Amino acid sequence: MDNNLHEECGVFAAYSLSGEDVAAYIYYGLFALQHRGQESAGISVSDTSGEKGNICSVKGMGLVNEVFDKKNLETLKGNLGVGHVRYSTTGASIPSNIQPLAINYIKGTLGLAHNGNLVNAAELKQELSYTGAIFQSTIDTEVIAYLIARERINTKNVESAVLNAMKKLKGAYSLVIMSPRKLIGARDPFGFRPLVLGKKDDTYFFASETCALDAVKAEYVRDVEPGEVVTIYKDKVTGETVIESDKTLCGRKHAHCIFEYIYFARADSVIDGISVYDSRVKAGKILAQEHPAEADVVVGVPNSGLIAAYGYSMESKIPYCMGFEKNSYVGRTFIKPSQTMREAGVMIKLNAIKQAVNGKRVVMIDDSIVRGTTSAQIVKLLRDAGATEVHVRISSPEFLFPCYFGTDVPSSKELVATGKSVEEICKIIGADSLGYFPNDRLNELIDKTDDFCDACFSGNYPEAAPKHDIRNI
Amino acid sequence: MDNNLHEECGVFAAYSLSGEDVAAYIYYGLFALQHRGQESAGISVSDTSGEKGNICSVKGMGLVNEVFDKKNLETLKGNLGVGHVRYSTTGASIPSNIQPLAINYIKGTLGLAHNGNLVNAAELKQELSYTGAIFQSTIDTEVIAYLIARERINTKNVESAVLNAMKKLKGAYSLVIMSPRKLIGARDPFGFRPLVLGKKDDTYFFASETCALDAVKAEYVRDVEPGEVVTIYKDKVTGETVIESDKTLCGRKHAHCIFEYIYFARADSVIDGISVYDSRVKAGKILAQEHPAEADVVVGVPNSGLIAAYGYSMESKIPYCMGFEKNSYVGRTFIKPSQTMREAGVMIKLNAIKQAVNGKRVVMIDDSIVRGTTSAQIVKLLRDAGATEVHVRISSPEFLFPCYFGTDVPSSKELVATGKSVEEICKIIGADSLGYFPNDRLNELIDKTDDFCDACFSGNYPEAAPKHDIRNI
Amino acid sequence: MDNNLHEECGVFAAYSLSGEDVAAYIYYGLFALQHRGQESAGISVSDTSGEKGNICSVKGMGLVNEVFDKKNLETLKGNLGVGHVRYSTTGASIPSNIQPLAINYIKGTLGLAHNGNLVNAAELKQELSYTGAIFQSTIDTEVIAYLIARERINTKNVESAVLNAMKKLKGAYSLVIMSPRKLIGARDPFGFRPLVLGKKDDTYFFASETCALDAVKAEYVRDVEPGEVVTIYKDKVTGETVIESDKTLCGRKHAHCIFEYIYFARADSVIDGISVYDSRVKAGKILAQEHPAEADVVVGVPNSGLIAAYGYSMESKIPYCMGFEKNSYVGRTFIKPSQTMREAGVMIKLNAIKQAVNGKRVVMIDDSIVRGTTSAQIVKLLRDAGATEVHVRISSPEFLFPCYFGTDVPSSKELVATGKSVEEICKIIGADSLGYFPNDRLNELIDKTDDFCDACFSGNYPEAAPKHDIRNI
Amino acid sequence: MDNNLHEECGVFAAYSLSGEDVAAYIYYGLFALQHRGQESAGISVSDTSGEKGNICSVKGMGLVNEVFDKKNLETLKGNLGVGHVRYSTTGASIPSNIQPLAINYIKGTLGLAHNGNLVNAAELKQELSYTGAIFQSTIDTEVIAYLIARERINTKNVESAVLNAMKKLKGAYSLVIMSPRKLIGARDPFGFRPLVLGKKDDTYFFASETCALDAVKAEYVRDVEPGEVVTIYKDKVTGETVIESDKTLCGRKHAHCIFEYIYFARADSVIDGISVYDSRVKAGKILAQEHPAEADVVVGVPNSGLIAAYGYSMESKIPYCMGFEKNSYVGRTFIKPSQTMREAGVMIKLNAIKQAVNGKRVVMIDDSIVRGTTSAQIVKLLRDAGATEVHVRISSPEFLFPCYFGTDVPSSKELVATGKSVEEICKIIGADSLGYFPNDRLNELIDKTDDFCDACFSGNYPEAAPKHDIRNI
Repeated sequence: MDNNLHEECGVFAAYSLSGEDVAAYIYYGLFALQHRGQESAGISVSDTSGEKGNICSVKGMGLVNEVFDKKNLETLKGNLGVGHVRYSTTGASIPSNIQPLAINYIKGTLGLAHNGNLVNAAELKQELSYTGAIFQSTIDTEVIAYLIARERINTKNVESAVLNAMKKLKGAYSLVIMSPRKLIGARDPFGFRPLVLGKKDDTYFFASETCALDAVKAEYVRDVEPGEVVTIYKDKVTGETVIESDKTLCGRKHAHCIFEYIYFARADSVIDGISVYDSRVKAGKILAQEHPAEADVVVGVPNSGLIAAYGYSMESKIPYCMGFEKNSYVGRTFIKPSQTMREAGVMIKLNAIKQAVNGKRVVMIDDSIVRGTTSAQIVKLLRDAGATEVHVRISSPEFLFPCYFGTDVPSSKELVATGKSVEEICKIIGADSLGYFPNDRLNELIDKTDDFCDACFSGNYPEAAPKHDIRNI
Repeated sequence: MDNNLHEECGVFAAYSLSGEDVAAYIYYGLFALQHRGQESAGISVSDTSGEKGNICSVKGMGLVNEVFDKKNLETLKGNLGVGHVRYSTTGASIPSNIQPLAINYIKGTLGLAHNGNLVNAAELKQELSYTGAIFQSTIDTEVIAYLIARERINTKNVESAVLNAMKKLKGAYSLVIMSPRKLIGARDPFGFRPLVLGKKDDTYFFASETCALDAVKAEYVRDVEPGEVVTIYKDKVTGETVIESDKTLCGRKHAHCIFEYIYFARADSVIDGISVYDSRVKAGKILAQEHPAEADVVVGVPNSGLIAAYGYSMESKIPYCMGFEKNSYVGRTFIKPSQTMREAGVMIKLNAIKQAVNGKRVVMIDDSIVRGTTSAQIVKLLRDAGATEVHVRISSPEFLFPCYFGTDVPSSKELVATGKSVEEICKIIGADSLGYFPNDRLNELIDKTDDFCDACFSGNYPEAAPKHDIRNI
Repeated sequence: MDNNLHEECGVFAAYSLSGEDVAAYIYYGLFALQHRGQESAGISVSDTSGEKGNICSVKGMGLVNEVFDKKNLETLKGNLGVGHVRYSTTGASIPSNIQPLAINYIKGTLGLAHNGNLVNAAELKQELSYTGAIFQSTIDTEVIAYLIARERINTKNVESAVLNAMKKLKGAYSLVIMSPRKLIGARDPFGFRPLVLGKKDDTYFFASETCALDAVKAEYVRDVEPGEVVTIYKDKVTGETVIESDKTLCGRKHAHCIFEYIYFARADSVIDGISVYDSRVKAGKILAQEHPAEADVVVGVPNSGLIAAYGYSMESKIPYCMGFEKNSYVGRTFIKPSQTMREAGVMIKLNAIKQAVNGKRVVMIDDSIVRGTTSAQIVKLLRDAGATEVHVRISSPEFLFPCYFGTDVPSSKELVATGKSVEEICKIIGADSLGYFPNDRLNELIDKTDDFCDACFSGNYPEAAPKHDIRNI
Repeated sequence: MDNNLHEECGVFAAYSLSGEDVAAYIYYGLFALQHRGQESAGISVSDTSGEKGNICSVKGMGLVNEVFDKKNLETLKGNLGVGHVRYSTTGASIPSNIQPLAINYIKGTLGLAHNGNLVNAAELKQELSYTGAIFQSTIDTEVIAYLIARERINTKNVESAVLNAMKKLKGAYSLVIMSPRKLIGARDPFGFRPLVLGKKDDTYFFASETCALDAVKAEYVRDVEPGEVVTIYKDKVTGETVIESDKTLCGRKHAHCIFEYIYFARADSVIDGISVYDSRVKAGKILAQEHPAEADVVVGVPNSGLIAAYGYSMESKIPYCMGFEKNSYVGRTFIKPSQTMREAGVMIKLNAIKQAVNGKRVVMIDDSIVRGTTSAQIVKLLRDAGATEVHVRISSPEFLFPCYFGTDVPSSKELVATGKSVEEICKIIGADSLGYFPNDRLNELIDKTDDFCDACFSGNYPEAAPKHDIRNI
């Protein structure tokens, strides 16, 4: 894949009802979700035995293992906490935007972490401003916090305030929220972004993906339903654990992001009942059916193209092999090659394995083409390594439309597919043939008829696009 | 002095009406105010040629020269800006509390920096909470920002909103505020903390002290009056510079903090018309009149006791000399001696100069005694260096009461003077005699009858103490 | 693999005879060799137009992208340079041991980088000490530098001094050396560690592996022969490029490290004429022949086991699939799980993909077992994911003997294989069956009869083991 | 003073014969010597109960409190150690030059720290090279270590080797050396740089100045004599503490650096029996005798001019007062004002106190004038503050000659005094009158006839200047 596409966020939350510290769980959980956001990370915790939930936070720019160290993790004492990893567009990549957001309000404290994008954030901000709200960041989460705070004045508990606030939100959001004594997980009615509930002894978890539950050896309980608000706390009187579900907003037709399966999520995660791994194998098989090729080997572009390549190989009976070596030491601070070196073909992350592809006709599987430049470089790597033909197969349809629901798909004019035929794109990337996954078979990836969002391919937005560009509020 | 007392803040602001960048000015201005706060520092700037005043900030824990470097200062492009240096008690020493506070609100942006403490902050926060406010820090500045934002809805301009907000504030505040096109300086009606207006060509400045104007070679224009709101901007129509003054809240009896003169402010500053240097020389002279001593030399504890020592010497005719060498390389990260080493007398900052005091009867001048431990160590230094007698003279009265107006005087039980006679304190610090500055002559330091606040010595608070301990909100 | 085994070093050198800066080449070259050493990195360069080769170095602990940044790379001006990445045992992991070593000596400067371990370093040090040598590090490289410096007194040029010094060295070394005007690559007569010569226009390179030549788009010229000294410079008179080869020490029976093929080297490298990729595919095939299994799928432990797994699948016709998801964000500063968490099974890097292995009999291929603990955890991962049987196949023989030639194989008592039967090890790691690669077929991996060193498996050391433990000098 | 002159080094050593850790002592000792070198710092320790004195070091660029933290200090376990603070010219300000130098040689380990400059370092290096020496730094200390190592081959103990090595050294050196079981302090026969012996219980210390002994509450025992080698250890047989003195090289006419008294040393130190404080007071008195002035006040330029100002005042009866406020927060990373700002008069460290000098004729005392630019700025500060006349008095003669014995006096062409009359210099710095300390009365500062070096003023070098510029080896 082109490395030009980024998921905006991952969330993780933990609540030990027996009072154990949860920061280490959140650390490992966020680490397992690192693929969903590499720009900043944060953890907020509180001790539910305190009266008003004094929240302690550690947040910073960088990867999970860069932001947290032994010393600062030790300052995070508390049995209830939320965490967040984030990617964002450059403009808003500033410290004040790092999540979780921890606030004081009328009922003590709230900690919030949020995955997704609202499409009516600008309108809500303006509305709140008219009654004197001040904003210290440019993240949607602050808007959500305000709405909850205002609703809380007239509701009997925090979960009702969350539900009432959700009635005003439009767009994509998977939320984890901590109040002084409760942990809440909530998901927008369309279910754009994933959110699951897990459990380990008497500790409860919410996570963007099941792989994060695996990371802390928690058991998967179930997905939070689109529109559902799940609240976990200990009954003050009986001391029993309460897990409440409010489904008032459930019921709408869902719009799960299909690209979570194709690229964003980790292959070992299961989202809304569908295995990401299975879905990618199937994508490869369908590609083989729709775009067969006369070839000697199938190779996947690491790491995201490997599973679809395996599926393609299974279906086509063309042998699968490792065509590339990937250098995984590329870190945030890596110095990019100069223009001269790039032109000389210096590629940092990837090298082709000559012995695997030399003298062979190669089917190369990748998950998407965004701007086209990286794809062209990879095709050239294969040719330089001796591949006699390179047939590119993409396990998603053409990107043609921007995403307003939590993905950083560039604007149409930067997308190579905009206004071009497949033949033209094939020429641009220097392939012998090019085949995209067919739009009309996307439903097969998740075994459902039309329960998903494919707006970036089809332009069919489940919810009206925002009036202002939400990515530059 | 005991090193246990800290001023809470210093503020500095600059507005170049011809559009030059002001970040460098603010950097040097804050550096000159570093003595007012060494815990964190921040600068926020905006470009007034933009529509809505997009604010850029650099903030961090540490000294001015630790927070800012060439690279991050270069990101601070803009001709209007405010800056802040801060000290605070440990509890609230967290990144989210670093000033300036930069917000978005109904009318664009606001940047605020604040020196002082409100006594009704808790009540105001509660009140705001009832209408849905959320708080992301524990600083008073956020409360002030909210009040301004709410007032702004129904006022014709930002300076009116500031004035209306000030009507609700109780306590000490010297404020600098930047809106998209205006710079405002405001001071509480009591005038607890200083604030001056300066000018250099067409750039205007507000600063906590005149020494910061000297640092940027700006000319001192005048002090902002207690209760006054000064607004600076360029008239949109005529293009002329406007300096407006609103004195609606002026007129009350003033309560200038007398300890600014005795200790906080820099000797080269002039506050409300009185030179800090003159005031300290006078303190030494009065001490000599009230507590004469049979002695051979007068020495001051560096640096804050030096000028009063000089005054004492002038009045008493006892020769002044340098009795101490101070090590100025002690930084924030200095490792403190272990208990064992401290008991062995290891003092890091100070050494006595034997040749100056050996065999002599010494008058030692310091500005205050807080807990008494440091004073005892210094007296011992002199004795170890051969002083035959040590007569301690303190250029302030005994600390007996906490300060609620921007100073970190510890609680009464930590103050050595609480419940003890001067003789008892003298014994604790190991001196041959001890004399404090007399309460009833404090007015002579500033040549005014009762225009000042001496609550920490007298318990006479100009404004009722807060209901809650404001230092732990 | 167990993550307990580390290659000691990688070297890279570049010489632009037309005078271009080479630091960027070395940076990318070292980055491609990062797998050979993640503990420290360094680059030294000089400008050959200067008289005596003033050497500039940047060195530091950490990964290539942590040690170097734009700012310090820019200080590395020069057209001749050597670089080094390093792993070492903890004891000697100190700044003074970071390579390259840059020295001043009788003939100007020398810069040296070294991959391998001498077995007579202690004796040589002692001998040098007797004539007054002082040592500022504990690396063999310093010994080599001394020998060259002493030889240089009576030799006509630096390459002769290098050759004479080599006559005294015993053990493994691949060396790159820069003098004021020459670049030298040299390899011990056994050829334990690899070293290749590359070229791009008029810039020449030495590198530990061909993948580093690919990284800078240089063309592979040939391997430096065991015992050979290759010298590159520009003839002062004619201005022509001279590439001299001295083969005085060539001819001995070779002892290429077989573990370079099995694990250390990158799959896309070709060492001494043999493709690492081919060698690993073959290892898998042989494993399938020797240790067949009744199973449904073959999975490789990422990343080092993947290719052998592919070979096993090809030979056995059991389908290959992706059984694991590897988290590549684990960095140097990652906080390891506490004992409690480890016992709870928290594995940071690896997760099994349930959909791939659930309900299946799995052949799991890894490259080696060192202590056994990691292998046990991985087997458990598969079982927890639903694998009904786990048949472990290891693409190397049992580790039984320490390596003295540049590999950090732990002492025998830490090796799980020491004194245990395969059945016992199988039980320890919890597998259903276990098969190791057969010792007597190692030669097939590189298509040569006995040109290699397999001492860590066989105990047949090509050169006598050192008298002192070389790893703790 | 001009801030253009720097001492090269300070050394500190400690040996606890009862086996206590000494790193903390060295930390505080170096901190007290920080004024002698702010560029880098290092501590090396070993445990004398070990056999061969394994040395552990922490070294780094920056101030003592920047280089050391709790974590790395804790790694410094051992009862014998040496430490160093350093200033150097830019060229050689590289990590490999940071002291102490820790080496392995024929007899185990040596740790060395060195204050001073050799004048025959280049010759010695060349000589050593001829027999195969390699140099990893450009510091004289490495040459000294080599000489000791070579001598050690044929001497019965390390102190004899040190003595023999000293016979070959020419120039200035105060050395502290640790062998596996001994601590040695040695000083060149001229006694250019100071070195004292101290004691606290059974711990012995060497320090560049007595102020460092005060810092650790050690008692001053005596100065190490010029040419003397003092060796401290525990007798292996009797277990008794041995303090040996070898005075073979003593007896030459001394050449104590007179500028130590005038500027380098701390006022609270006593060097070779003379108090620095007394010496500076006397300098002020002599200045008053030689260059009287009609004036109202005497002010000293902080901090180095204050004591001489006090002496001038005592002698002249013109009142002393504080004329300046110095900002002591200027750190290593402070951003210097741009050219424009400097021209506008922005001075970072110093401000004049108007109230002290306004309307007055001022005598301003400074310790030296190097380039003249800073002096000019300070004179202007006083005039801007209202001084009607500024009479500059300098407590040293004119700098006219470079120093080869451990001081960074710039080359003659940069010195303002070179080739100019006092009247011309007076005009350059903008003073009303200017008076230098008279050359022929320097002896009075230390009450000795000609036991000192004043080469930088007189050009009379006690030892021939080096053939090569020693500051750029």
